[in-house]
Amino acid sequence: MSGPDTLFTGISQLVTPHPGPQRGKAMSELVVMRDAAILVRGDLIEWIGPERGAPQAAQVVDLGGVAVVPGLIDPHTHAVWAGDRLADFEARVKGVPYEEILALGGGIRSTMRATAKASVEGLVALARPRLQALLASGATTIEVKSGYGLDFGAELRMLRAVRELQAEFNLVPTLLVHVPPTSGRAEYVDGVCRELIPEVAAAGLAAAVDVFCEREAFSVDETRQIFVAARQHDLNIKVHADQFHAIGGTELACEMGALSVDHLEASRVRQIRSLATSKTVATVLPGVSLHLGLPAAPARKLVNGGACVAVGTDLNPGSSPLFSLPLALALSVRLNGLTPAEALTACTVNAAAALGLGDRGALVPGQRADFLALHGEDWRDLAYALGGNVVSGVFVGGVKR
Amino acid sequence: MSGPDTLFTGISQLVTPHPGPQRGKAMSELVVMRDAAILVRGDLIEWIGPERGAPQAAQVVDLGGVAVVPGLIDPHTHAVWAGDRLADFEARVKGVPYEEILALGGGIRSTMRATAKASVEGLVALARPRLQALLASGATTIEVKSGYGLDFGAELRMLRAVRELQAEFNLVPTLLVHVPPTSGRAEYVDGVCRELIPEVAAAGLAAAVDVFCEREAFSVDETRQIFVAARQHDLNIKVHADQFHAIGGTELACEMGALSVDHLEASRVRQIRSLATSKTVATVLPGVSLHLGLPAAPARKLVNGGACVAVGTDLNPGSSPLFSLPLALALSVRLNGLTPAEALTACTVNAAAALGLGDRGALVPGQRADFLALHGEDWRDLAYALGGNVVSGVFVGGVKR
Ligand SMILES: [Zn+2]
Ligand SMILES: [Zn+2]
Repeated sequence: MSGPDTLFTGISQLVTPHPGPQRGKAMSELVVMRDAAILVRGDLIEWIGPERGAPQAAQVVDLGGVAVVPGLIDPHTHAVWAGDRLADFEARVKGVPYEEILALGGGIRSTMRATAKASVEGLVALARPRLQALLASGATTIEVKSGYGLDFGAELRMLRAVRELQAEFNLVPTLLVHVPPTSGRAEYVDGVCRELIPEVAAAGLAAAVDVFCEREAFSVDETRQIFVAARQHDLNIKVHADQFHAIGGTELACEMGALSVDHLEASRVRQIRSLATSKTVATVLPGVSLHLGLPAAPARKLVNGGACVAVGTDLNPGSSPLFSLPLALALSVRLNGLTPAEALTACTVNAAAALGLGDRGALVPGQRADFLALHGEDWRDLAYALGGNVVSGVFVGGVKR
Repeated sequence: MSGPDTLFTGISQLVTPHPGPQRGKAMSELVVMRDAAILVRGDLIEWIGPERGAPQAAQVVDLGGVAVVPGLIDPHTHAVWAGDRLADFEARVKGVPYEEILALGGGIRSTMRATAKASVEGLVALARPRLQALLASGATTIEVKSGYGLDFGAELRMLRAVRELQAEFNLVPTLLVHVPPTSGRAEYVDGVCRELIPEVAAAGLAAAVDVFCEREAFSVDETRQIFVAARQHDLNIKVHADQFHAIGGTELACEMGALSVDHLEASRVRQIRSLATSKTVATVLPGVSLHLGLPAAPARKLVNGGACVAVGTDLNPGSSPLFSLPLALALSVRLNGLTPAEALTACTVNAAAALGLGDRGALVPGQRADFLALHGEDWRDLAYALGGNVVSGVFVGGVKR
């Protein structure tokens, strides 16, 4: 990773949030530097400042007078799956009820069946182009969850696929406890706590444990039990909560110091207050709102209340086939009421905090040299343009991808 | 344009609507052919059929086993403009009222001032990357409107910029009568009819005349007067109508045989019936609904009523910064209630009809060899995926772009 220092010049506008998670009003406080330069040593930022007065470097790369922002961080994806949901999608938009789609063999269980049958190599081959699309869009760090395994073996294969793909992408793996079994729930949750989590922790296959806490999924008590086991094995915790019903997952997660609560479409005053008064990041997922035509999470109220808000794609085949993090960012402005500056903070330092990472997301010395060169001179294009390609260059650890 | 015949093979699934405008139920009747091949002679399709049994050709191009659909046609853009609306956008999403944005020098008049000041060469240079983005997204034919000129000279410069860009893209130019002057309306409309339209027609600078018929823009009577002048000069007519108020523009356009009525967000039973019982295409623009958070046009009701529906990006800086026609297609499924099949028909043969073109939009012998190779084997990805890059190859007249 070392090598000669590289100086990046030709930056019309360098734009970054301050490092570390930013909450409430601080989410809009971007640093904007004109005619800037970045000195990279190894894969870290060594120096940032005005181009005149930049230190000497062995190599100089002229970016041609464009805006530069931190590499975006996608804090929530389910990028590993097999099978497809195209028939489901077509049926749903024609008005076929979800129960009927399930009865026809569709729905999430079809993804689970196909994923459970796939080998690690098969899962790697299927996930690679999805991660390439996200990286090309500007996502320099991507979280990937398990959760489509019908049994623990399939869960482990999903996480091993993520580990293989870590050679090509900066990925953060999460064990997701997603769908309860149709019978034997208590035994299943016990097995998660006594077998799956210890094995995942011992093999270093995940950085965090996530639970889908919802009426139709796991209860608050089951979620607590799983969180306690995760903590015992030094894993971070996060939760899918308040997607359809606010049953208490958000409050539990905030009390237990979860890294993030994700979804939040059904959050009300009480849940917003929990998030605003804890260190837990509130992650909103506008792709789901667009794809399913459901209400969007109250990100505006969360920021106004003082919470730390992140934005992710939630890339998954059933509820968010969203392959671009800039589009998630742009959608969060339209659907969740964030401003462009808040949305940039949400997709950088706050997304890093949702993954427990403090070494990336801001362009300051000491952070990873993950950054994006845009096509234009004004960074706001990133929040403004819908489709097209706003990003001209993706740099990971100072190397163009 | 001539040259040796080329046979395109490796088409897992060739999908096309039938040629000509399709209305109502016929919008979902796609032809799907497995393991197909396309023979191209010059820039036209010479033969289509199963790969086994394909005729010999001087060249063979193997597309590698992917889905192929017709090149998409964008029937509504304002791709030529100068200046930007980023500050407006930021102010609007922060809740600043439009009147205040106008008072601060923003809004459409800021685009008009910047565009009026620009030279033809300047406009060409600004529009080129936008058209490149649309083409790369899969738009093989693109309509481009004037309409930001403060005076006739600026309108003519916009249309000359489109003419210059026709060397690089398949463009269909439209003269748009967009914003009434703050005083002297009657003289202005007379001038449009007696000077601008004759000059545009004589120079062959536009194929159609479009009018923004709306409470805050041109009245139905003014629109009729302009349409009559357009007809006298053998130009097609189209209209921006029912965007905010259904004041009668749709009914007028249908009576007078307009190619299309575009927007339709405020259309009700009466306007839907007018469109369903005329040959005029109903063009919906979901980018505006997403960008401004306004209601979407009732495309589902239009199709159910028997209308011929098209979808466009409406690419423009103020109300639809949408640089991808597949994203417009995908949005029309989420926001306007079209099915994937209807959306494909809307973006191909029906969009062609909205431009008065009968030679493209369907993959059958005799049509232009404009087609897209997708990344996957199932064409429905085009309607399903949000962001990312579903299109792997764009072929215009049989040549890869
Ligand atoms: Zn999720
Ligand atoms: Zn328009």
